[in-house]
Amino acid sequence: MSKIGIFDSGLGGLTVARAIASRFPASNLVYLGDTARLPYGAKSEEAVTRYAVRCVRYLVELGAETIVVACNTASACALPTLQATYGRTRVLGVIDPGARAAVAATRTGAIGVIGTERTVSSRGYHSAIAALSPSARVTALATPVLVPLVEAGWIDHPVTRLTVETYLSELHTAAPDLDTLVLGCTHYPVLRTLLEEVTSSLFGHSVRLVDSAAAIAEALAPTLAGLETSGGRDAIGERHFAVTDLPSSFAKVAATFWPETLPPVEAVDLTMD
Amino acid sequence: MSKIGIFDSGLGGLTVARAIASRFPASNLVYLGDTARLPYGAKSEEAVTRYAVRCVRYLVELGAETIVVACNTASACALPTLQATYGRTRVLGVIDPGARAAVAATRTGAIGVIGTERTVSSRGYHSAIAALSPSARVTALATPVLVPLVEAGWIDHPVTRLTVETYLSELHTAAPDLDTLVLGCTHYPVLRTLLEEVTSSLFGHSVRLVDSAAAIAEALAPTLAGLETSGGRDAIGERHFAVTDLPSSFAKVAATFWPETLPPVEAVDLTMD
Repeated sequence: MSKIGIFDSGLGGLTVARAIASRFPASNLVYLGDTARLPYGAKSEEAVTRYAVRCVRYLVELGAETIVVACNTASACALPTLQATYGRTRVLGVIDPGARAAVAATRTGAIGVIGTERTVSSRGYHSAIAALSPSARVTALATPVLVPLVEAGWIDHPVTRLTVETYLSELHTAAPDLDTLVLGCTHYPVLRTLLEEVTSSLFGHSVRLVDSAAAIAEALAPTLAGLETSGGRDAIGERHFAVTDLPSSFAKVAATFWPETLPPVEAVDLTMD
Repeated sequence: MSKIGIFDSGLGGLTVARAIASRFPASNLVYLGDTARLPYGAKSEEAVTRYAVRCVRYLVELGAETIVVACNTASACALPTLQATYGRTRVLGVIDPGARAAVAATRTGAIGVIGTERTVSSRGYHSAIAALSPSARVTALATPVLVPLVEAGWIDHPVTRLTVETYLSELHTAAPDLDTLVLGCTHYPVLRTLLEEVTSSLFGHSVRLVDSAAAIAEALAPTLAGLETSGGRDAIGERHFAVTDLPSSFAKVAATFWPETLPPVEAVDLTMD
């Protein structure tokens, strides 16, 4: 039975794990959050690549045959290195599926992207979107304050609303005709309601929000085709969760993402210092 | 000539380095920012201790005879381990000097502390203040959103003002008579003007803000006594800056803390993975 390894710097990738588990319940999933070294978003490409290589090696050692890099920053920085080691079909990032969903969604061709500093400076979404639709115009904005606000639990909070208004006003000034916004960080879907309210009031027209979770599950369909129905409706695959720091905090937050009871979260040490 | 090693998770400890350099210009300083693994504030005590041990070993290898742990989180978590290895007089944290300054400043005996989650949960300031003044009442609040706001450069920004108002209102409700507030994180002195405005409007009486930078320079006086004047007024000691990631970003921000020209910032790899 195929085993899927999902890797993120922390908790955010659980939205991706959830989307995969919902669509392919019989798949065996192993999730790794590199909580000892998060956040990745403001670190160098070299550091993020080094961490991603170590994390993926762990998932491969556990028997993962397909690897999903759920973290946008790690996808933007480390995918070429990971694919050179393990093969292009074996390692999937979130940027290509997100770009595909954005190109399918836009009518005006004006696509916005919000993400971490490193995701934006890598221009990964620019390249992926240009490859699919050369005429599309991409406006990307680094929104580094959103992750700590989500991690502080300030989801429905005046500070978070003012932060979102500040960022999206800047995006509106740069691209008033954008009709599609890529949530280029796995933390952002938690703010979807707020982002919808603010985009709709600022832009005065509907803006489609694209997140990678559904798109990556779609991208796995060829690999996991048999698992959508095999084993009957009730077959549930194995679930394995591991983090590099603070397993109990992770378990607490993960429970809010995961309707079924979670197995114990394992603490692994991926450093050698 | 005595060499002082100063260690922080990132940039914030430069306020401490600056205070030491101003008071003891002839001292030789080596600064290490563990930018590959910052922030420390929400990580486990075990992880923070492991990182601190590795960083201090680097400073000792470079010849530092006295070590200043400028990071409050690392001081709160790792000081006993570091002092057990290198001796109590050789390794200084920022919490004891900050506590001493707070006890000296308070009139009502009601002292507030703001810091990271780990600094607050460690209750390090509670213990240090209680040891000096058993009747003092300490109210500590974790304010995790402030560091990312400072790092985003949102110093004089409506989002930061609203965040500070949110946190300090909570502190005011818990301890309306507090007259001294410890800035228990090296990032916070950058927000001093805003913190002064908000405390004064919320509390309706003057609140003394205490930061550890001046207090730690004071604590070094016995060690560095000769350097206040030795070598004449113009003698400037060696300065050496190192980080574990993104030296160029560090150099850019450090220049705003440091009036003299900085030497090149060195990138060091303290991981073995």
